[in-house]
Amino acid sequence: MERGAPESLDLGFAQVDLDRERRQGVPEVIYGAGKTAGQIVAIAGALHGRGQSPVLVTRLDAEKARAVAEGLGEGFSYFAEARLGRLGLARAPDGIGRVAVVCAGTSDLPVAEEAALVAESLGNEVVRIRDVGVAGIHRLLARVDDLRAASVVVVVAGMEGALASAVGGLVAAPVVAVPTSVGYGAAFEGLAALLSMINSCAAGVSVVNIDNGFGAGFLAHRINHVK
Amino acid sequence: MERGAPESLDLGFAQVDLDRERRQGVPEVIYGAGKTAGQIVAIAGALHGRGQSPVLVTRLDAEKARAVAEGLGEGFSYFAEARLGRLGLARAPDGIGRVAVVCAGTSDLPVAEEAALVAESLGNEVVRIRDVGVAGIHRLLARVDDLRAASVVVVVAGMEGALASAVGGLVAAPVVAVPTSVGYGAAFEGLAALLSMINSCAAGVSVVNIDNGFGAGFLAHRINHVK
Amino acid sequence: MERGAPESLDLGFAQVDLDRERRQGVPEVIYGAGKTAGQIVAIAGALHGRGQSPVLVTRLDAEKARAVAEGLGEGFSYFAEARLGRLGLARAPDGIGRVAVVCAGTSDLPVAEEAALVAESLGNEVVRIRDVGVAGIHRLLARVDDLRAASVVVVVAGMEGALASAVGGLVAAPVVAVPTSVGYGAAFEGLAALLSMINSCAAGVSVVNIDNGFGAGFLAHRINHVK
Amino acid sequence: MERGAPESLDLGFAQVDLDRERRQGVPEVIYGAGKTAGQIVAIAGALHGRGQSPVLVTRLDAEKARAVAEGLGEGFSYFAEARLGRLGLARAPDGIGRVAVVCAGTSDLPVAEEAALVAESLGNEVVRIRDVGVAGIHRLLARVDDLRAASVVVVVAGMEGALASAVGGLVAAPVVAVPTSVGYGAAFEGLAALLSMINSCAAGVSVVNIDNGFGAGFLAHRINHVK
Amino acid sequence: MERGAPESLDLGFAQVDLDRERRQGVPEVIYGAGKTAGQIVAIAGALHGRGQSPVLVTRLDAEKARAVAEGLGEGFSYFAEARLGRLGLARAPDGIGRVAVVCAGTSDLPVAEEAALVAESLGNEVVRIRDVGVAGIHRLLARVDDLRAASVVVVVAGMEGALASAVGGLVAAPVVAVPTSVGYGAAFEGLAALLSMINSCAAGVSVVNIDNGFGAGFLAHRINHVK
Amino acid sequence: MERGAPESLDLGFAQVDLDRERRQGVPEVIYGAGKTAGQIVAIAGALHGRGQSPVLVTRLDAEKARAVAEGLGEGFSYFAEARLGRLGLARAPDGIGRVAVVCAGTSDLPVAEEAALVAESLGNEVVRIRDVGVAGIHRLLARVDDLRAASVVVVVAGMEGALASAVGGLVAAPVVAVPTSVGYGAAFEGLAALLSMINSCAAGVSVVNIDNGFGAGFLAHRINHVK
Amino acid sequence: MERGAPESLDLGFAQVDLDRERRQGVPEVIYGAGKTAGQIVAIAGALHGRGQSPVLVTRLDAEKARAVAEGLGEGFSYFAEARLGRLGLARAPDGIGRVAVVCAGTSDLPVAEEAALVAESLGNEVVRIRDVGVAGIHRLLARVDDLRAASVVVVVAGMEGALASAVGGLVAAPVVAVPTSVGYGAAFEGLAALLSMINSCAAGVSVVNIDNGFGAGFLAHRINHVK
Amino acid sequence: MERGAPESLDLGFAQVDLDRERRQGVPEVIYGAGKTAGQIVAIAGALHGRGQSPVLVTRLDAEKARAVAEGLGEGFSYFAEARLGRLGLARAPDGIGRVAVVCAGTSDLPVAEEAALVAESLGNEVVRIRDVGVAGIHRLLARVDDLRAASVVVVVAGMEGALASAVGGLVAAPVVAVPTSVGYGAAFEGLAALLSMINSCAAGVSVVNIDNGFGAGFLAHRINHVK
Repeated sequence: MERGAPESLDLGFAQVDLDRERRQGVPEVIYGAGKTAGQIVAIAGALHGRGQSPVLVTRLDAEKARAVAEGLGEGFSYFAEARLGRLGLARAPDGIGRVAVVCAGTSDLPVAEEAALVAESLGNEVVRIRDVGVAGIHRLLARVDDLRAASVVVVVAGMEGALASAVGGLVAAPVVAVPTSVGYGAAFEGLAALLSMINSCAAGVSVVNIDNGFGAGFLAHRINHVK
Repeated sequence: MERGAPESLDLGFAQVDLDRERRQGVPEVIYGAGKTAGQIVAIAGALHGRGQSPVLVTRLDAEKARAVAEGLGEGFSYFAEARLGRLGLARAPDGIGRVAVVCAGTSDLPVAEEAALVAESLGNEVVRIRDVGVAGIHRLLARVDDLRAASVVVVVAGMEGALASAVGGLVAAPVVAVPTSVGYGAAFEGLAALLSMINSCAAGVSVVNIDNGFGAGFLAHRINHVK
Repeated sequence: MERGAPESLDLGFAQVDLDRERRQGVPEVIYGAGKTAGQIVAIAGALHGRGQSPVLVTRLDAEKARAVAEGLGEGFSYFAEARLGRLGLARAPDGIGRVAVVCAGTSDLPVAEEAALVAESLGNEVVRIRDVGVAGIHRLLARVDDLRAASVVVVVAGMEGALASAVGGLVAAPVVAVPTSVGYGAAFEGLAALLSMINSCAAGVSVVNIDNGFGAGFLAHRINHVK
Repeated sequence: MERGAPESLDLGFAQVDLDRERRQGVPEVIYGAGKTAGQIVAIAGALHGRGQSPVLVTRLDAEKARAVAEGLGEGFSYFAEARLGRLGLARAPDGIGRVAVVCAGTSDLPVAEEAALVAESLGNEVVRIRDVGVAGIHRLLARVDDLRAASVVVVVAGMEGALASAVGGLVAAPVVAVPTSVGYGAAFEGLAALLSMINSCAAGVSVVNIDNGFGAGFLAHRINHVK
Repeated sequence: MERGAPESLDLGFAQVDLDRERRQGVPEVIYGAGKTAGQIVAIAGALHGRGQSPVLVTRLDAEKARAVAEGLGEGFSYFAEARLGRLGLARAPDGIGRVAVVCAGTSDLPVAEEAALVAESLGNEVVRIRDVGVAGIHRLLARVDDLRAASVVVVVAGMEGALASAVGGLVAAPVVAVPTSVGYGAAFEGLAALLSMINSCAAGVSVVNIDNGFGAGFLAHRINHVK
Repeated sequence: MERGAPESLDLGFAQVDLDRERRQGVPEVIYGAGKTAGQIVAIAGALHGRGQSPVLVTRLDAEKARAVAEGLGEGFSYFAEARLGRLGLARAPDGIGRVAVVCAGTSDLPVAEEAALVAESLGNEVVRIRDVGVAGIHRLLARVDDLRAASVVVVVAGMEGALASAVGGLVAAPVVAVPTSVGYGAAFEGLAALLSMINSCAAGVSVVNIDNGFGAGFLAHRINHVK
Repeated sequence: MERGAPESLDLGFAQVDLDRERRQGVPEVIYGAGKTAGQIVAIAGALHGRGQSPVLVTRLDAEKARAVAEGLGEGFSYFAEARLGRLGLARAPDGIGRVAVVCAGTSDLPVAEEAALVAESLGNEVVRIRDVGVAGIHRLLARVDDLRAASVVVVVAGMEGALASAVGGLVAAPVVAVPTSVGYGAAFEGLAALLSMINSCAAGVSVVNIDNGFGAGFLAHRINHVK
Repeated sequence: MERGAPESLDLGFAQVDLDRERRQGVPEVIYGAGKTAGQIVAIAGALHGRGQSPVLVTRLDAEKARAVAEGLGEGFSYFAEARLGRLGLARAPDGIGRVAVVCAGTSDLPVAEEAALVAESLGNEVVRIRDVGVAGIHRLLARVDDLRAASVVVVVAGMEGALASAVGGLVAAPVVAVPTSVGYGAAFEGLAALLSMINSCAAGVSVVNIDNGFGAGFLAHRINHVK
């Protein structure tokens, strides 16, 4: 019934646009949260069969990951902290420079790891900088050299999200800020951090959705491959 | 018609509780925004006549201040930046230590000055620390000695309000955070700063209302006079 | 990879800044909600081994507390109502005066107890004043002497949070207000109480995050130890 | 073109339902804010000519009131503080008891006066209780006899609106709470007071719209005339 | 330690003010949601032993109700739809008139029944009017006689809450509007209905908290017993 | 620089897509609020010269309208209440049936008139039904025949917006609801009405933006010309 | 006790208005979420017995559907993706044209299918257009012929809801936009999509509640049967 | 009193950090909104004297610009649409590629021009793409070659902000989205566009504050100069 559409793969539940990467350099990424293991195996297999590598599956919980791993076999890796699945190896780093991924507390690590692994998988060298919250500014300053050596900086923070401004004031590279839903009460599931980051007094900071580690890693990849 | 109420002063528009200071050590402070110059002169005069000194008038614009100054005569001073009027001299400093008032940008100065002058007027030594935003953390660090020497720190910031967390991580004194309505767009008239401050990852920080310089200065005074 | 950072403890999941207390007088407090019993035992043991006492663990549920208690042995106490764990004894009270912790209803008790126990553990004499809601003002007035004898007052209230204003009008000490998520419907998980408290018509009141008993107890400690 | 509609008065801009009072005992009240003086004179005159007395005009500013007064002649009175116009005399009090109208500060007086005058005009004895905020609870308690003698209590308060709960705890009569837009910052134009009042921990309290003095006075009238 | 407080009952978890009814005619009502069956049995028994009858327990789920019923014995009734427990009989109706409780859909029945049973228990004749939503206005009109015969009308509605305005336009009695959390999406757990009702274009309408059937029934009782 | 774009008119400030009507049957409508009289004259003239008739200008205030009228000459009409300008005559009605435009109060008339005139201008017979608010349901019922005779019904209401549900329950035609910013306090500039309408319990109701009379009239036109 | 009401069916839990379809052409639709299988069987059976066909049951989960299917026997069908039950066959298509139902992603399919099946069941030919998100605009354009051939277009989208504007710019038919709760973080359960759609820059778009597939299908049916 | 701070310029009202550019490559940009012409002249002159060129002044209205132009003399240019002042010439373009600045309507032009001029001034070739809204997708597609040729794309849109997603789906370059306050009603001063953009279904999109053309232009510059 679809006339004139680009070649696509109809799996009975989702159409995958097989030409997307060719057209735009955007690999299809599978959002794992709303799909069954069977669906994920089918889509990932089809994309991989067409030559996309790696194929990423985000928001994949541990239980479903086991089933997916069985279905896809040995090319598949699962990164539990980031809840990320990957079919195929990370691409060799070929970006302009390095991507730094910075976060403040242990609670923000899953989102930070998702960002870091996505960037790594797409072909970027990543340096992880952890436990450097605004309330302990000396730790952040101890990492200034690493921060300033990066081509792009991803800052992941919940609660009041002030880390984005502090980092933004220290570097000349573009900063991608990721508010997280870490916190309670008036954190309002990440709204406080989002508002804080979008109002950052530091220039050169932009913001993605709450807990959107994938989006930040992907954007960092694009910035690090600007042509 | 009022039976058994404490002695009060009926000026036809507002009752002033003349015993309040005696009972609680709280001087009456006149909120100038909704009152005429004539009303302010009458209330301030009555309070001063009863022995309260100084009498403070907050949110007093320059034009009204001229009329009040004429009405009250020479004991009256007007601080334009803070929009504060004062009848009588500042009390001699008798607090535990010093109050530091910190702010990031010129736009936050009116609120910061209101806090500083209120604290000074009530009997506190005040040190002002300006232009020390989170995005230029080296300036803040250059003032760490002054910050750490204070008994109480008032932090005034708009936009993303991250300064409260940065200062909170540097000092062991209580921090009173004042969000301001400085900013635009998603600052939502100070809401972003308020949420940021109330979610501060630094311990020892509490928050007063948006633009409430008076409240912060008054609370700093109380903390600096804890018994 | 961390160059020049202060001495820290890397447990594979969280870095603990062992020098924090020495530098700022801030003991590390462990937020128990997002950590396993094993992680808590490891961090608490390390901090205690370095000489910090007591070590506090907040938001620790009863089940996890049993495992932590087994791991840490006999120096560990668990306070179920406050969901607080403590390794080591409370410090001897050495503050300027007493801390009063006031709440209105049984539902607010967990937060109030967290505040009270944190202040006690850090070295403050605490007086608890319960069941004194605004809607039964005579009960509150019956405790005025206790309230006025305190150096700092922590007020814990959910629903409309009016207790903070009522207490704020009765005392000359600094008031730390803690909104709670107690209530339903338009209480919006504590937002109504937070807005109410931040707009308090009583001077000398500041606010911490919703349900942040720890923060209030910690701040009360700092105010009661102002230098 | 209107078939079967009840008798009405078409003034080219607004239809007035002349039978409304007869059918439901609800006198037509003219909302003055969006109408010209000429329109107000025409509607008020028509209603009065049909026998309604008094005719009330709410939200009538002073300038427009002068023109209306000229147009309607001597039966018209204007109450500047309440911004209320009235054509005809107040009805003789014939309610079950008295209506108490309580407010905290001078800024709330316009709304309180509107409530009081509306209730008086419709036939209720009204007792005004002013300057009795929660932060000065002793003043409120000094008026307990007046409060308890009332059949209905209207409480008008801005900022944190805590007065409704305090009054609600003192009386057994129904309480009508009116949040006002008095305040600044996180008062959010009356939202904080509204949320506070709707979450009141005192039973027997209900709420009308922000600044809706008319609605409160009208409802108090109805409660005081329950059949 | 409590000096001068009124006689109260300390159950180790909650203080019950035994004199409250005597002082204000307000029977203590037990909020069942946050209490164990054992606590409820103890408090209810104590209040009943002191002569209060009936004793109401709100928000009591079916399972806990069985345990409470066993503990309190035969004077205890449980009303499942309203989730209300009652120890003792309803008082004989002695109000000015009847209370009408109106709701639109089956989903609103639990809240409506809570309101109706509370009013009945406290001594009011109650007429229930169901399934009369605004979208089927003919059903509402078919009940106009019952509506107009009531002294007070409680209107319970979720979704857009328009029923309050429609009923408010039909009756001359005071209307107590109860928004419910019935609905989905942009109903925002009752916020849409609350805003709708608080902005009602019908005069004589006031609002209580979302799902607060108890509060509405209690207020209706007070209005129906105005003195 | 624009390659392959459809023919367009560059006026130095705004490009007008001259082919839009041909392609989609959508006449270009000029949003007058942000444009000068000169710009409006130029765009309207160009569109009219190309054969579009009528050309509508929305949100055109009276003063600017005078200048536009001078510039465009005699084919131009201005409808002050609706703040609508029209160059050319209304098209002859050629829809499936009639469009009814319903509103409750005089304050909603400008938005209602904008909707009515837009529909009329585009070729629809329009019946206006005014002053039929939910709080006076008998007036609404008196117009049921007119309502049921319409092919589409536009309902315009501010405050609580309940009219949309009441009308929606009376007709089988599609209902387009327009919330208005009429109201005060918790009406929040039309948000309350918007939420109310989007949650309407009546089926067949959809909603456009606050005060968007143009959008409602335009959509009614499209529904009345469905093919 | 109900006098003069239209004939109705009292099932002890809900009254069903048997004449509704006759009066207004609106078939009763059963909202399955809050009802037991037994209740659904009773209501559906009664309506069907009176001649309504089909009878629709919305928000019916799979488990309950099995019990309903057993109770109603072979005329009953269950559509799992749309969570819709139907007793009786779809009516033969008799509308003006076709209804197009468009959605972007697999996550939006349940809502889209509910809309499509409701429209089909009530007598409309439906064309489904899937996987045509704004971020892959070429897929949408590939379906322009189908879109332009429709008499009404339903657009279902979560996240940022931009699809409604893109489709609105391509067609001359009325567009019914359905925001969905698909998304996370700042999607705020569909609020972002709702705001986006209600502000659509494309004319001819109106909006129903979040996830309200039924409402959209029903409205599309009405538009496609305008008389 | 400032010990150890970097060299700075104290103008009595604001401290300018003269070393900022040297340290971080961030030229000081003067926010013109809250400063007098005299202050702007002083700061700009000082910065320029130190060698910074160009010096940018944002949010500078036309009247103030005239005074600034007089004070600074001939090196100063004023761009009225963007409300931007510039002392010195734009730097020669030395970025990786070109920056595209895209906007939908004339109302968004001021913000788009601010972004474009800031990027140009800092040394970037900029291509402007206007009048390409989502509702007229063919115009956007006509510019695909220009879009795909850019290294960074800035998308400026108000109302529903859908343009960011549409552009994000067409390009492989990083997209910086700027919501504007253009719109009315439920646009909520740019909130709708902000939420829409932050939830964009297109990967590679990040967001800056509402109306923050400067921030977007500055970030585009940084991305276009990634090292």
